[in-house]
Amino acid sequence: LIEDVKTHIFKRVVNYHETDAMGIVHHSNHIKYFEEARVDFLRAKDILHEHSPQGPYSFAVIRLQTEYRKPARFPDQLEVHLQAHSEGVRVRFRYALYRSTVDHGLELLATGDTELAALGPNGKVARLPQSMTEIFTQTGWQGSWPPPQS
Amino acid sequence: LIEDVKTHIFKRVVNYHETDAMGIVHHSNHIKYFEEARVDFLRAKDILHEHSPQGPYSFAVIRLQTEYRKPARFPDQLEVHLQAHSEGVRVRFRYALYRSTVDHGLELLATGDTELAALGPNGKVARLPQSMTEIFTQTGWQGSWPPPQS
Amino acid sequence: LIEDVKTHIFKRVVNYHETDAMGIVHHSNHIKYFEEARVDFLRAKDILHEHSPQGPYSFAVIRLQTEYRKPARFPDQLEVHLQAHSEGVRVRFRYALYRSTVDHGLELLATGDTELAALGPNGKVARLPQSMTEIFTQTGWQGSWPPPQS
Amino acid sequence: LIEDVKTHIFKRVVNYHETDAMGIVHHSNHIKYFEEARVDFLRAKDILHEHSPQGPYSFAVIRLQTEYRKPARFPDQLEVHLQAHSEGVRVRFRYALYRSTVDHGLELLATGDTELAALGPNGKVARLPQSMTEIFTQTGWQGSWPPPQS
Repeated sequence: LIEDVKTHIFKRVVNYHETDAMGIVHHSNHIKYFEEARVDFLRAKDILHEHSPQGPYSFAVIRLQTEYRKPARFPDQLEVHLQAHSEGVRVRFRYALYRSTVDHGLELLATGDTELAALGPNGKVARLPQSMTEIFTQTGWQGSWPPPQS
Repeated sequence: LIEDVKTHIFKRVVNYHETDAMGIVHHSNHIKYFEEARVDFLRAKDILHEHSPQGPYSFAVIRLQTEYRKPARFPDQLEVHLQAHSEGVRVRFRYALYRSTVDHGLELLATGDTELAALGPNGKVARLPQSMTEIFTQTGWQGSWPPPQS
Repeated sequence: LIEDVKTHIFKRVVNYHETDAMGIVHHSNHIKYFEEARVDFLRAKDILHEHSPQGPYSFAVIRLQTEYRKPARFPDQLEVHLQAHSEGVRVRFRYALYRSTVDHGLELLATGDTELAALGPNGKVARLPQSMTEIFTQTGWQGSWPPPQS
Repeated sequence: LIEDVKTHIFKRVVNYHETDAMGIVHHSNHIKYFEEARVDFLRAKDILHEHSPQGPYSFAVIRLQTEYRKPARFPDQLEVHLQAHSEGVRVRFRYALYRSTVDHGLELLATGDTELAALGPNGKVARLPQSMTEIFTQTGWQGSWPPPQS
């Protein structure tokens, strides 16, 4: 469905321990899903070894925004679609969280946007190595988000 | 320090299980702190019995924004300052998270803003009873956030 | 390595949000890993549709035991090996948590044991349908745990 | 109700984000409640400053056992009763989790038992300073657990 090759796709199921008494995924877990998608992206691009504790770099989230459209439920199959964008010592990620079903395809549940500061081995803000910023730039950043579904 | 009587104050410590490998509170926990402050506010205003499962109403978070300025650490003493504002079937809350120390008073760590939809017993969007909306209105909403510290 | 066909194997990575300030996976997360392995087992055996909210049954943990041998760390690749055993209205599960690496194969990190009570649609203890108990019996239960590695 | 002066009591409410789709507190949170009670005990005994990151010592959980008798629910008022016992480089803690209500007093929900290894500044197993072991010994260890209620 999603044509944009610059979008990274991370798949995972909803775990029972992520639900709350309303029978839906607690809204704090979407923040964890987004982080998992970021890490999966670094892994897919083969730059996770630059990240702490294997490498010297880590990322501190400095701004976060989420819009919740529909609840996720146990045991939904989820997809997080992600785009990255390097801006100096900061990296921005955008996310679209979908429920994936055989009958209805992808159903948009939430969108997110985070801004992260790159930290060096001393915990201070650091400029990232070219191997990382290149990846973030290649991933691109398109005009509208979430990407339109065809 | 904070003069505004319309601001609700919720105090709690950082728990060890909320830290991450950077030695700081993981950014998803701020979302939980804000929720705890909301519930504490309902309790303080004596309207928690209207909330599920004791009462018929619950709240679904539909938008969330957080800015992280400084990390919280174990075992910091925290304060969440909160303001509420009723807008039809939606309620907005603003938060300011502080570290409280004897030497430095309150130190601003993060701010947050959430918009919630009130849900009735059937899980559908509902108009809240006057007992609740009155409380939200009384709490007020001031021009700047976080409140200036004197 | 593990020859026993009766053992279910669930794989997942350590997420960053599961680490704590000691730089290791917080010990409460092992409990979540075990639950995820149980659900993955039900899915693999095609009986997850009997589980709430899709089906009428759910499980309440009534006893839990864990031994922690070595810490798990971000971004370890993990395997949970699981055995199930039906005992009337109770189901017992045993778990062995391993780190999986190319160089060292499987390294035992922790073991666990849980006893669960089957609950029916009304939340009361219930006898499970034969489709479920048969699966639990087939999975078997061997003498020693964790299984010896060859 | 509880006469034993050697038992430390930690109070806290159930948070909404700790519930699951069964409408009860997810069983992994009891592990967090026990940890919070341990930290509260160290704070009450004025030895938390010996604990990382303020001091050189930390504790790794090496064994954990929990029995779940009745579910905790939002927004229950809870009490964790705790006893500590120093055994060389290991410390054992026992817990009893109660719901506290005006009408029914204390209602036992769960019991727990953990064994922890004391770690020094280098992350290696360490002998604790006398200031800590004395406290653990003073807390005592009585024959039956949970303590009988009068």
